[in-house]
Amino acid sequence: MSEWRKDPIVDRWVIIATERSKRPSNYKEIKDEMSSNECPLCEGNEKQTPPEIIAYREQGTSKDTPGWWMRVVPNKFPAVDIKGQPNLQERGVYQFMPGVGAHEVIVESTKHEPGLDTQSVKQVEEVIWGWRDRSIDLRKDQRLKYIQIFKNTGPTAGASLEHSHSQLIATPQIPSEVKTEITGMNEYKYRHGRCALCDIIKQELLEGERLVAESEHFVCFAPFASRFPFETWIVPTEHQPDFGQIRVQQVQALASMLRTVFRKMNVLIKNMPYNMVLHTSPVNVQDDHGNYHWHLEILPRLTIMAGFELGTGYFINPTPPEMAAQALREIQELYFIEKKSEMEVPQYV
Amino acid sequence: MSEWRKDPIVDRWVIIATERSKRPSNYKEIKDEMSSNECPLCEGNEKQTPPEIIAYREQGTSKDTPGWWMRVVPNKFPAVDIKGQPNLQERGVYQFMPGVGAHEVIVESTKHEPGLDTQSVKQVEEVIWGWRDRSIDLRKDQRLKYIQIFKNTGPTAGASLEHSHSQLIATPQIPSEVKTEITGMNEYKYRHGRCALCDIIKQELLEGERLVAESEHFVCFAPFASRFPFETWIVPTEHQPDFGQIRVQQVQALASMLRTVFRKMNVLIKNMPYNMVLHTSPVNVQDDHGNYHWHLEILPRLTIMAGFELGTGYFINPTPPEMAAQALREIQELYFIEKKSEMEVPQYV
Repeated sequence: MSEWRKDPIVDRWVIIATERSKRPSNYKEIKDEMSSNECPLCEGNEKQTPPEIIAYREQGTSKDTPGWWMRVVPNKFPAVDIKGQPNLQERGVYQFMPGVGAHEVIVESTKHEPGLDTQSVKQVEEVIWGWRDRSIDLRKDQRLKYIQIFKNTGPTAGASLEHSHSQLIATPQIPSEVKTEITGMNEYKYRHGRCALCDIIKQELLEGERLVAESEHFVCFAPFASRFPFETWIVPTEHQPDFGQIRVQQVQALASMLRTVFRKMNVLIKNMPYNMVLHTSPVNVQDDHGNYHWHLEILPRLTIMAGFELGTGYFINPTPPEMAAQALREIQELYFIEKKSEMEVPQYV
Repeated sequence: MSEWRKDPIVDRWVIIATERSKRPSNYKEIKDEMSSNECPLCEGNEKQTPPEIIAYREQGTSKDTPGWWMRVVPNKFPAVDIKGQPNLQERGVYQFMPGVGAHEVIVESTKHEPGLDTQSVKQVEEVIWGWRDRSIDLRKDQRLKYIQIFKNTGPTAGASLEHSHSQLIATPQIPSEVKTEITGMNEYKYRHGRCALCDIIKQELLEGERLVAESEHFVCFAPFASRFPFETWIVPTEHQPDFGQIRVQQVQALASMLRTVFRKMNVLIKNMPYNMVLHTSPVNVQDDHGNYHWHLEILPRLTIMAGFELGTGYFINPTPPEMAAQALREIQELYFIEKKSEMEVPQYV
């Protein structure tokens, strides 16, 4: 079983992942990982994944057979394990506990396509419902305190499968990044009496230069202190702490905006490698997180986090967010054509 | 000029780096960066770098000509600028200031070799003296609060030049990673009355299973909560808050250990990509940082920081540090031969 280990100095937990264990000699094969073997996520290959947790599928079709359009399965090489109790143990200065948690894969399409940009808006809605349903279900497990939904696309962004998918890892602690955001938002609320993200979207709509897209329910912009070139956040206009509170009209609006942003990114830079993270309030904790405001962060991986970033926690971004947002804004729907494989990449002027 | 921008929610500054500015269309050429052009760091090409800041060189030789063995130059594409004042400005929710700081390159060899492992111990000593001299000199500038010394080796670790070099970026704020470590060490001191890192090296020497090397002056081990496979820390046995306090015998001992560790790593995995960061106490601040304990962190880049890591601040490490340390320990000096190009990589059993 995996093990959670806490850094003895800072609030950082590491999963020592035995299911994906690598002996030193394994690293020689590192390049071959994104194999061209048969894809376990494609329709018809359902038996190649662990048994499905949920699937949206046609009535009358059976579990782990075709007939689904959105499917959630346990990760075949889970970083954490749903069994066991997160009981803290100590040895001298060190603290650790069993690698308890959930690690699931959300299969976003029956077809072997790399991203959400080539799906229909309806299909992206189904993916968002999948995220939401898993979030609602997993929080019934009192051991879990946070549900991290994320998406890795492209090998340089850490994806080991090409087929469009997202993942979730549920953890028995509130992650440090989330705690830091909560603290920052609580302090902002204390000083100004308002939500920081509500104020940010107000200012972004006013200034306009970092805006990428807007609708009644969501604002999409390149954040002022973007860590990455073309970093883009999607924030609900309504103050909503918990992603699990999302409503039908919001799911529809988010699906449309998310698909548009990914299409714009892929027109700008073909097969843009990116991570996407969903930041939301913790679950199963007593503290009130009413000051939090959930949002999506899209983090393109065109630069490399190197010694400066790892040493300081600061970032160097060679593309001002104002320039990035302008480029993304200027890509109009007319550039989009249906098949990714035929897509021509217009040179940005 | 570059700009420092503060995230409006968390304590994270980003350098929007105009000197290395990339328009969207530039990213198409991303792969060609590590060019095979003439190397600006090689002996004889001194005019291709900005004028040297310091160099250890033979008497009678002139600045920016051959005759040196260790040379420090300004980064040709600096992320920050030594001119200007770090005056905080505000616009609505956002804070920013001019991109003040120092960005220097420490050229570690006259020859076009990729790392410290192929240098003599004496030459590694000279590099460490270079780090120390720049640290002592730069702190005379009251605007600078932290001097981050780091090293990127290999393209996947962010190196854009092959020639062995390290870098420093001096910042007008104390970086968040360093602040977090300081807070953690202060809390540990408050609770236990001792230095956390002093206690850690005591326990590592006792348990032994994560130990890589030890000497009178330094202990080298794979940290208990290693974020990366083969992550290795080198910590002075003496409680020393500030790297600038390093003494002659310590420089000699560190040079020898650093070279050994890099040699071991390169035998284990040929051309191991890694970042190295030097964590030390801040400069030009009133707070006492006597609880801090400087150290080197070597962070191999065999895994990819993806959505989970970016979303949570936590890490997944597929190689237990005990296994990593054992592999590094078992590589004996007898494997080392002089020329890297002729080096045979023994299979780790």
